[in-house]
Amino acid sequence: MGNTQTAKTKVESGVEDAACGDAKVPRTERGRRTLRKLLDAAAEEFGEKGFHEASVSSITRRAGVALGSFYTYFDSKDALFRALVADMSEQVKSSARSAISEGMGALEIERAGLLAFLNFAAEHKEVYRIIDEAEFVDPASYRDHYETIAARFVERLQAGAARGEFRDGLGEIEAWAMMGMNVFAGLRFAVWGLADKSPEEVAAGVNRLLAEGLLRR
Amino acid sequence: MGNTQTAKTKVESGVEDAACGDAKVPRTERGRRTLRKLLDAAAEEFGEKGFHEASVSSITRRAGVALGSFYTYFDSKDALFRALVADMSEQVKSSARSAISEGMGALEIERAGLLAFLNFAAEHKEVYRIIDEAEFVDPASYRDHYETIAARFVERLQAGAARGEFRDGLGEIEAWAMMGMNVFAGLRFAVWGLADKSPEEVAAGVNRLLAEGLLRR
Repeated sequence: MGNTQTAKTKVESGVEDAACGDAKVPRTERGRRTLRKLLDAAAEEFGEKGFHEASVSSITRRAGVALGSFYTYFDSKDALFRALVADMSEQVKSSARSAISEGMGALEIERAGLLAFLNFAAEHKEVYRIIDEAEFVDPASYRDHYETIAARFVERLQAGAARGEFRDGLGEIEAWAMMGMNVFAGLRFAVWGLADKSPEEVAAGVNRLLAEGLLRR
Repeated sequence: MGNTQTAKTKVESGVEDAACGDAKVPRTERGRRTLRKLLDAAAEEFGEKGFHEASVSSITRRAGVALGSFYTYFDSKDALFRALVADMSEQVKSSARSAISEGMGALEIERAGLLAFLNFAAEHKEVYRIIDEAEFVDPASYRDHYETIAARFVERLQAGAARGEFRDGLGEIEAWAMMGMNVFAGLRFAVWGLADKSPEEVAAGVNRLLAEGLLRR
């Protein structure tokens, strides 16, 4: 196996941990770069052609990696797809995390998280197609993606309530509703993006809905 | 053509108008019943197997309709799928419409509409798989489904504002956010449904979010 190991140890840099569930974890910096190239090429290929039309040989060509090297990292196109869904899921989460800073209020955290997601989705329009296709190609990954993100929403709702900013009793219902708001705002305004509303405007509108609801006061 | 006509005239009963975009419109009550059977069988077949694995012969077998009759109504499996997406989309909309009655307030309309949708989705779990697969099989139908529903949300938001119940300035951003809330609430609580929350409880939770947002008061 040379520069890979099958045990799922933590990757220090380059490739997110979550991506390695179905990849053999590279031991060297060069191996990590190759794995990253394969995942990026896979995002393009699956995003453009969909799972069934995508091919391993076309992905390795896009990545500039020898076909033989592919199998150092992945056992099959299916394994690569699963690793890509986990990688995209991790990128979605880390784009939101990186937008959040110490000292932000609970509501401001939601606005900053959505804004980061909208910008991420506008830059990586293929993320919707890939996550959505997982519903058919790999239902467990699809469900895991949303359940993991919903769990983060629940944590933030409870943290906001503990700090006295959000009302008590918020939980899974509100978490799934908020995730749905963000996913559909991203679909309409970032992926189909008719450039009629800026990401800031969309994030502010959704945030006002969270702040005060729809009622006239 | 016997009991069909190619002109897109209004169907009086049995099969919703919208389903007929890709079906040849039946002239007789018997023809309408056959078309309904084919659409219901298609919902089961596409819901269980997905578009690619589904077959016209298996659909006609489920429907108890002769294979030859199929082509009286549809030119291909693709045309049937398009008609089914339009039919499901129409069923989603009419389930919400039928829950709304004269005299309901603007907020109550949203609660009743979501409750009806949750019940519909619990009864017709295949609706998610079929609409979601349209993203890949027939992207125009997928987009049309959500754009049509979003337009209804915008109308209701504006009607609620005109009656002084909702605040001014609500529009597409809030409409897409609300549609996303409902779709994800349905996915989690009706389709995956772990029976941990009743549809009434979910509809009430989402409605409270629309009424007052998240903030502690």
